Amino acid sequence: MRQGLTVAEAQEAILAETPRLGAETISASDAAGRVLAEAVVSARRHPPADCSAMDGYAVRREDLLGATADAPRSLPVVYEVPAGGQAARPLEAGEAARIFTGAPLPPGADAVVMQENTDQGTERVEIRKEPTPRDNVRDGGEDFEIGDRLIDEGVVLGAAHLGVLASLGRTIVSVHQRPRVAILSGGDELVEPDRPADGGRIVSSNSYTLAAQCREIDADPVYLGIAEDTPEAIESRMRAGLGADVLVSSAGVSVGDHDHVRDVLEKVGCRLRFWGVKMKPGFPLAFGVIEPTGQLVFGLPGNPVSTAVTFEEFVRPALRKMMGHRAVHRPVVRATLTDDYKKKPGRLHFVRVNLEREGDRVLAHLTGNQSSGVLTSMIRGQGLAVVSLESDGVSAGAEIDVQILDGTFFDRAERGF
Amino acid sequence: MRQGLTVAEAQEAILAETPRLGAETISASDAAGRVLAEAVVSARRHPPADCSAMDGYAVRREDLLGATADAPRSLPVVYEVPAGGQAARPLEAGEAARIFTGAPLPPGADAVVMQENTDQGTERVEIRKEPTPRDNVRDGGEDFEIGDRLIDEGVVLGAAHLGVLASLGRTIVSVHQRPRVAILSGGDELVEPDRPADGGRIVSSNSYTLAAQCREIDADPVYLGIAEDTPEAIESRMRAGLGADVLVSSAGVSVGDHDHVRDVLEKVGCRLRFWGVKMKPGFPLAFGVIEPTGQLVFGLPGNPVSTAVTFEEFVRPALRKMMGHRAVHRPVVRATLTDDYKKKPGRLHFVRVNLEREGDRVLAHLTGNQSSGVLTSMIRGQGLAVVSLESDGVSAGAEIDVQILDGTFFDRAERGF
Repeated sequence: MRQGLTVAEAQEAILAETPRLGAETISASDAAGRVLAEAVVSARRHPPADCSAMDGYAVRREDLLGATADAPRSLPVVYEVPAGGQAARPLEAGEAARIFTGAPLPPGADAVVMQENTDQGTERVEIRKEPTPRDNVRDGGEDFEIGDRLIDEGVVLGAAHLGVLASLGRTIVSVHQRPRVAILSGGDELVEPDRPADGGRIVSSNSYTLAAQCREIDADPVYLGIAEDTPEAIESRMRAGLGADVLVSSAGVSVGDHDHVRDVLEKVGCRLRFWGVKMKPGFPLAFGVIEPTGQLVFGLPGNPVSTAVTFEEFVRPALRKMMGHRAVHRPVVRATLTDDYKKKPGRLHFVRVNLEREGDRVLAHLTGNQSSGVLTSMIRGQGLAVVSLESDGVSAGAEIDVQILDGTFFDRAERGF
Repeated sequence: MRQGLTVAEAQEAILAETPRLGAETISASDAAGRVLAEAVVSARRHPPADCSAMDGYAVRREDLLGATADAPRSLPVVYEVPAGGQAARPLEAGEAARIFTGAPLPPGADAVVMQENTDQGTERVEIRKEPTPRDNVRDGGEDFEIGDRLIDEGVVLGAAHLGVLASLGRTIVSVHQRPRVAILSGGDELVEPDRPADGGRIVSSNSYTLAAQCREIDADPVYLGIAEDTPEAIESRMRAGLGADVLVSSAGVSVGDHDHVRDVLEKVGCRLRFWGVKMKPGFPLAFGVIEPTGQLVFGLPGNPVSTAVTFEEFVRPALRKMMGHRAVHRPVVRATLTDDYKKKPGRLHFVRVNLEREGDRVLAHLTGNQSSGVLTSMIRGQGLAVVSLESDGVSAGAEIDVQILDGTFFDRAERGF
């Protein structure tokens, strides 16, 4: 087992053992945000035929050469083509047909005059403008032809993709599965949030943070509850989570007398790959794989900020990869730090910062107390400033990388253009 | 009724009539992404008392002045304080107590020596380091005190907020309601995507795009189906949607002979506020309010790109405001256009572009055919380049504003730090 990895080494070790999950077939209406596990090839042509882009009159352009408002031409309106209808017969020389947006162009017609350039007659129509060739005609197949490869495997489905799927007649689609994430917490001091917290007992908030972090990326949390601090209780709960794709324990995997998690992990078939990452918060992170199922196991440190940050840096990218995402990492922006931050070399620090836009710059303010026990400091910041392992600190005014945890940072209260 | 507004005027007119919806009380586990409709004030103290930040030994610092590895001190271990437990009695001079992370500090003790600096003895312990004052002690109330205002009304709840709510014992929370959005489409040429599309019939893809655009922001779409193109059929479907917060029609509200929507809207009590926005795609947009209920009505143009873009620019900000969001608009980034784009002055253009990162720059490439009938051009782009009303075009190499429609644009395939 490796020990004391860098953040980069740990992420690489984890992603190397993380599979993309297989496909499942779901209703297209549930597929927003999911990653396509098939290539979508059109079995239709759209528009199905040349059609009118306007409400107006289908004509033969040669009949209207030189037509103007001062020298209009009058043509008989021989029939009407409604949207969804068909022309009764081909259009002959010297004839016009009433036509509506989306309706197929009659054979023989080669342009559409929009009704604003006519007298909108019903028996005969007076046309005040010479059409250009194929004026107001949408070509059949302009949007897509049969056999066109429209959406590639691996694309994250957005609203427009779902519209395109509908227009292809596709109501069912193959996407990568969502990982099930079993969440275990343990410790005799912990109680559920709806129980009395007295006599030194504290609420098991980590499980609720972790479940919310799973839901945020559409992974499926399975909360196994709080295990009592005995090997038997931990093993029993852990076995209940062995059917999931990932097991996350926020009971510490450390060296304390009362930390039985590591022994139990070995007993249920987990081979630990590494222990300890040179970071703060969050050093005592363990990662392993259960053999032969390949289930990933994360033993996260128990302090609430350490739990949340190690989920962000290690569990989240793995879950995103499982779901088929290519862009598994959070956004990073450059920002100007407004406070001094001192540290010792030897660990990479993730420092909670509050972000403020100032013109083109982003200012990053420390959120105050950086204790790993202070979960409320996570809600005062939108991101984590990254201070490198080698560094002995950063001075106010320096440019730093900030990982964005709060996606609403990018949204705008003003229109922005 | 006003006509021919600018995009800014239209957005302002709409938001001025858009209410924030009232509150509903939901389970905290369903509250991720919702906007808080109450201020969260702590009814607890956390940690509830001074406690140990480490596994180790609770001591009185005065007993250990000058202790080093070469000159260790030996103290009797008089009892153990497990996490979740309590000290049996106050710690007297010359005593040590075994203590675990999170356990309350015994009265009389003023520091914790981490076990790595001891021989980890059970009867007696040899201590090899002089503790600093309150070494490894977390202060009671360090995270929050009773009465602290922890989360303000209007905050968008993320994973860390849900962890904080749990630690407060809050499992139920008050958030702004999600708007119900009734979606109506109409036209005799339209069929549902699971029906045969032949003889000039095309799939009603707009409704599916609109429903997905609603779901993307967690609004609740109610699809009313395809109305036949008669006033009676349209009125019947529309009345089915009058209980919703917003009615969106993608049947055109235009001047065509077959567009009955406008008459029906007046009949059901809708007072149109404006018609027509100086933009492309999407000029023929109508907005009104049903009196006296205040239900918002959007008549969107029928071409698929026009429908999707007008939803983005006008319906989405209104729905976000209803849900309590302050940042109702999409992100905007500066980008370098890589192609020439020509237009006539008089309308603001939203131009579909595909984005590429090149170092610190973002390059914006036109997606090709900008016809408002080509929905597939929306899936080739991640954003809409904004070309102003007055402009007669933009040359390749110019800096432009691009509104980001695809949130995954900000995500990273590489770690980024």
